[in-house]
Amino acid sequence: MDRLRVYILGATGLVGQRYVQMLAKHPWFEVAGLAASEKSAGKTLQQAGWVLDEPPPPQVAEMKIEKLDVEKIPRVDFVFSALPSEVAAKVEPQLAARGHVVLSNSSNMRMDPDIPLVVPEINPDDLSLLERQKAERGWSGGVVKKPNCTTTILNLPLKPVLDEWGIEKLHVVTMQALSGAGYSGVPSVAITDNLIPYIRGEEEKVVSETKKILKTDFEIYATTTRVPVLDGHTEVVYVDTKRDFDPAAVADAFAKFRGLPQELKLPTAPERPIEVRPQIDRPQPRLDRWAGNGMAVVVGRIRRLAPRKLAFVVLGHNTVRGAAGNSILTAELMVKTR
Amino acid sequence: MDRLRVYILGATGLVGQRYVQMLAKHPWFEVAGLAASEKSAGKTLQQAGWVLDEPPPPQVAEMKIEKLDVEKIPRVDFVFSALPSEVAAKVEPQLAARGHVVLSNSSNMRMDPDIPLVVPEINPDDLSLLERQKAERGWSGGVVKKPNCTTTILNLPLKPVLDEWGIEKLHVVTMQALSGAGYSGVPSVAITDNLIPYIRGEEEKVVSETKKILKTDFEIYATTTRVPVLDGHTEVVYVDTKRDFDPAAVADAFAKFRGLPQELKLPTAPERPIEVRPQIDRPQPRLDRWAGNGMAVVVGRIRRLAPRKLAFVVLGHNTVRGAAGNSILTAELMVKTR
Amino acid sequence: MDRLRVYILGATGLVGQRYVQMLAKHPWFEVAGLAASEKSAGKTLQQAGWVLDEPPPPQVAEMKIEKLDVEKIPRVDFVFSALPSEVAAKVEPQLAARGHVVLSNSSNMRMDPDIPLVVPEINPDDLSLLERQKAERGWSGGVVKKPNCTTTILNLPLKPVLDEWGIEKLHVVTMQALSGAGYSGVPSVAITDNLIPYIRGEEEKVVSETKKILKTDFEIYATTTRVPVLDGHTEVVYVDTKRDFDPAAVADAFAKFRGLPQELKLPTAPERPIEVRPQIDRPQPRLDRWAGNGMAVVVGRIRRLAPRKLAFVVLGHNTVRGAAGNSILTAELMVKTR
Amino acid sequence: MDRLRVYILGATGLVGQRYVQMLAKHPWFEVAGLAASEKSAGKTLQQAGWVLDEPPPPQVAEMKIEKLDVEKIPRVDFVFSALPSEVAAKVEPQLAARGHVVLSNSSNMRMDPDIPLVVPEINPDDLSLLERQKAERGWSGGVVKKPNCTTTILNLPLKPVLDEWGIEKLHVVTMQALSGAGYSGVPSVAITDNLIPYIRGEEEKVVSETKKILKTDFEIYATTTRVPVLDGHTEVVYVDTKRDFDPAAVADAFAKFRGLPQELKLPTAPERPIEVRPQIDRPQPRLDRWAGNGMAVVVGRIRRLAPRKLAFVVLGHNTVRGAAGNSILTAELMVKTR
Repeated sequence: MDRLRVYILGATGLVGQRYVQMLAKHPWFEVAGLAASEKSAGKTLQQAGWVLDEPPPPQVAEMKIEKLDVEKIPRVDFVFSALPSEVAAKVEPQLAARGHVVLSNSSNMRMDPDIPLVVPEINPDDLSLLERQKAERGWSGGVVKKPNCTTTILNLPLKPVLDEWGIEKLHVVTMQALSGAGYSGVPSVAITDNLIPYIRGEEEKVVSETKKILKTDFEIYATTTRVPVLDGHTEVVYVDTKRDFDPAAVADAFAKFRGLPQELKLPTAPERPIEVRPQIDRPQPRLDRWAGNGMAVVVGRIRRLAPRKLAFVVLGHNTVRGAAGNSILTAELMVKTR
Repeated sequence: MDRLRVYILGATGLVGQRYVQMLAKHPWFEVAGLAASEKSAGKTLQQAGWVLDEPPPPQVAEMKIEKLDVEKIPRVDFVFSALPSEVAAKVEPQLAARGHVVLSNSSNMRMDPDIPLVVPEINPDDLSLLERQKAERGWSGGVVKKPNCTTTILNLPLKPVLDEWGIEKLHVVTMQALSGAGYSGVPSVAITDNLIPYIRGEEEKVVSETKKILKTDFEIYATTTRVPVLDGHTEVVYVDTKRDFDPAAVADAFAKFRGLPQELKLPTAPERPIEVRPQIDRPQPRLDRWAGNGMAVVVGRIRRLAPRKLAFVVLGHNTVRGAAGNSILTAELMVKTR
Repeated sequence: MDRLRVYILGATGLVGQRYVQMLAKHPWFEVAGLAASEKSAGKTLQQAGWVLDEPPPPQVAEMKIEKLDVEKIPRVDFVFSALPSEVAAKVEPQLAARGHVVLSNSSNMRMDPDIPLVVPEINPDDLSLLERQKAERGWSGGVVKKPNCTTTILNLPLKPVLDEWGIEKLHVVTMQALSGAGYSGVPSVAITDNLIPYIRGEEEKVVSETKKILKTDFEIYATTTRVPVLDGHTEVVYVDTKRDFDPAAVADAFAKFRGLPQELKLPTAPERPIEVRPQIDRPQPRLDRWAGNGMAVVVGRIRRLAPRKLAFVVLGHNTVRGAAGNSILTAELMVKTR
Repeated sequence: MDRLRVYILGATGLVGQRYVQMLAKHPWFEVAGLAASEKSAGKTLQQAGWVLDEPPPPQVAEMKIEKLDVEKIPRVDFVFSALPSEVAAKVEPQLAARGHVVLSNSSNMRMDPDIPLVVPEINPDDLSLLERQKAERGWSGGVVKKPNCTTTILNLPLKPVLDEWGIEKLHVVTMQALSGAGYSGVPSVAITDNLIPYIRGEEEKVVSETKKILKTDFEIYATTTRVPVLDGHTEVVYVDTKRDFDPAAVADAFAKFRGLPQELKLPTAPERPIEVRPQIDRPQPRLDRWAGNGMAVVVGRIRRLAPRKLAFVVLGHNTVRGAAGNSILTAELMVKTR
């Protein structure tokens, strides 16, 4: 197959850099260009401030970042967008109208009924909404969204539980990583020897997006907090199931869970989307966030607290599976299924 | 009133040092002696390794720590014990048998039916169990326990909710401070850029002790985690109440909650045992743990998520209200009510 | 004495809030008003975002922050300025021209020969430069600067060494706190599990300001770094002295060092400006930064590594002695000596 | 070449685990066995408590750890020792007497004149001391030591400076990682929001070992501190050179520095033992510690502060280049040069 060309919007932010990192070494894709705000225009990624642990991949290290201009974005196979939502809300419809296929991290339009909100292992069929978009919005391109990072990480283990035992009610408390707020999102002075029990807009997203992805309407109660951890969101989950369960069977269902990306052996698909840790004190963000190259979620502490009362802890890499990686996996799925 | 004499067991640990700090400047009490393990015997607190932010109070700075020996503990009004539970299990009954009144932080005996497990604002009457102890165990002294730190912090706000609206069910997730594990409990290498979603024995204590303190039997589901915060346990709480509520009324009930210690104006009693923060991103451990000199718990994010579904976040200083301070307050109560 | 009226510019930043905290409970001063940028105008400090551990003092909690406007600043005894340097460079001369006495934290003008750069225990006489300012600049008011925080903390222990043994050469390496960069200065993502071996402009300031304060011209080599510590700058110092020394005599000279503020018993003056810790692993920022209410520096590890080669470690609270506190002490000195 | 058999002593500690991690995937070596203290005997590494970010390599994951017993260690090509020094002092001579070649991390015997203390790029010829050991001690095997981690990281950039410009004097201040103290070495309660300006025995080692490795006797002044960073020691270095220099030439000498391991293309040898970062705020531990797979040191901030006064910052991975990796590289060198 010929290399497919991709373009990255918002390439200088934490998620944008994760896109660069993953796409520059991707077997199918080739980075055709990078755009960001005026401030970074004309600079290389290094000059604009590269912040990930590994240096920028050589293939893109010398690329000049362009000022974001809808009209100047070249014909590519996919546009990956890590723009701030208020910019995305303006730019993405224009891109779709001009024929671009946009895979977007931004929260705008996520809940629109004709917009696919996709975790490839869970609801790949929702990509068919792209046809409805074209029909209803008159777009020649389209927009596909990835869910909020916390939601993606939560929904992966919920899926097999829902399928096997049904879900009536969900209580979740998250302990989210600093990188989830973006590079300058959380000042060190605010979080040293501290945690913050609130993240603006996050709880609402977890509730509404979960219902859209899983296509159900069970009760969801979410409290989202910020903790001094660099990468990796940890979520403590209580599920009231419809039918009673054996916790070993739940562990087994997690471990065996596979989706279309695994079936199609997509390059970014983790072999096991849900890894189960038997140790009682796992998952831990620093030890487990890179499971499946950051594309697996890791589950532990699977307990039956009472009949039909399941508890577990799930952890995922918020800027990989929770952001850039999920969108890249979605693009791979689109390549193979279109 | 004459100064009452007190003796501190396990004076070199984190909680022991907190006892020293609070008792050395106490208006009623006078530290008559300190005991610890052989390793510290003959040293001053400074020599044994003082670790709190303020230096040891001058009144005890020069005191020599004694090797713990039940027979050598002098006649005092109260013995405060911060011993490891396995040591306490042996020593405390001997002390009670010899006529000492022991206020203990250790987890042994907490669930024995004749042992008071006291949060002074909640169940001061349980101190009457001391009579039963004397009768049943033949002790001339007695043992009073403070609950597990997480339990104390949780139960303070539960009390007014239980009284006013009833409780059917409780889901709680804690984010606990490093000091809760003792000085060497959590290696820095284990917790840097990390959290640990498990604390040995903690969840069981929260469940059983809460039922004993509040004298009810509602369902409790607890997950306890360790986070990189020095002092201050944060707990995210979901309560299914028996009757529906207005969240403003709950906030009001928290803010107005008072107990016998407030009525008696005990020296260590915080004016308001529960402080309510209106800011959406509070309580935060570093900003709120010293409320009421570490003796108040701080509540925020009071929400009605659905009919009869209450959520809030509570925070308290784990080595003050959660440990030394609660026992000192109990001793004050015993002075005033005996 | 009647209360003196003071006004705070830049009241919403980290140093500005420290000014508020210290001035609101000051025995001589009364906060007459607060100014900040447009963004905070009309808000209270709480609404604008109070970030210190203790809540804003009641006397100023309800005050409305004013938009900074030189013409509207009322007649007061002192204007304390914690403005960004580029704003200060414009505003402070205007204020001085209008008759205000400005005590400023900003780095502009610090090296001007007619501007006093004062550490009250070291060079109180430099306040006489205010007369030269009036003469040369035609100001009816005046400007007094406090040095860079790192410089102030360094210079306090240098002063007795210089006086007693002479200084030929200085090598210093600093490990500076996060709060030194201001509230949003260091993103948590940049500093978690990390340090940054560079602080823009800092090394130059240490060199040039030290020479101005101590009025000498010895060689100074400085490397300044940022570490994940909330408050308290630690500095490792090697001094080549002119005459050989006994390290015990140096410790003694530190411990006995006093200045005019101590002589005059100024309210903010620490009893001992330099505290000496005998423990081999001190000073430590979290344990020692509040020595003398944050106004003392703490020295430890005093060693004679070779003839005339002195080494020690010094620590000070960067936003108290290093910033707001030093200027308040200077104002007190001006009150008592004018 | 047939696989060479190696045995690891002290396999459960932080450095021991790093040995396991590096040796299990080594192209030449095969792990023949693991020993540790009684506590871990009979367990797998996972059961004994694996603490590195990646899980234990499959080849050793199922191995049972043996209780250390000199007589039971099988005939192997190399014994790698990460034992506590007091154990090593007893065991290592016995092993050497029995014919084992021991590559040791422990500090005992390092300064003995017949013991090679080797950084393979700097003093590979010192391995010839093994002959003298055999002659003088009557050993059929031998002992080779790696220097203290801080010393190794410091000496790599000193070597080209010494060769090219000569060294007269050295001032160094280190900011060392938590892992340098071992898994339980630094309690989180001690180091959160803090640093500790003292590491027992470290400064003496830096001074004496540097003189032995570089075979010179210039003045060395060292202050070693502990900072809240997981891995990676940072060192701020001032060098008084004998001849003046151009800082660009120094940078060039660093970048071009190569040793025998590079010439022999040893598997663990980094291509460039010293990497130079041009960015003014580098090296940083989290961003740079994995340079050359943890085997390169990274230098930045190369400055000429005055004639013959060089300053720079160097960083290296303390448990890789500073410990396990350096010994493995030494073993590779021995294979190729014997």
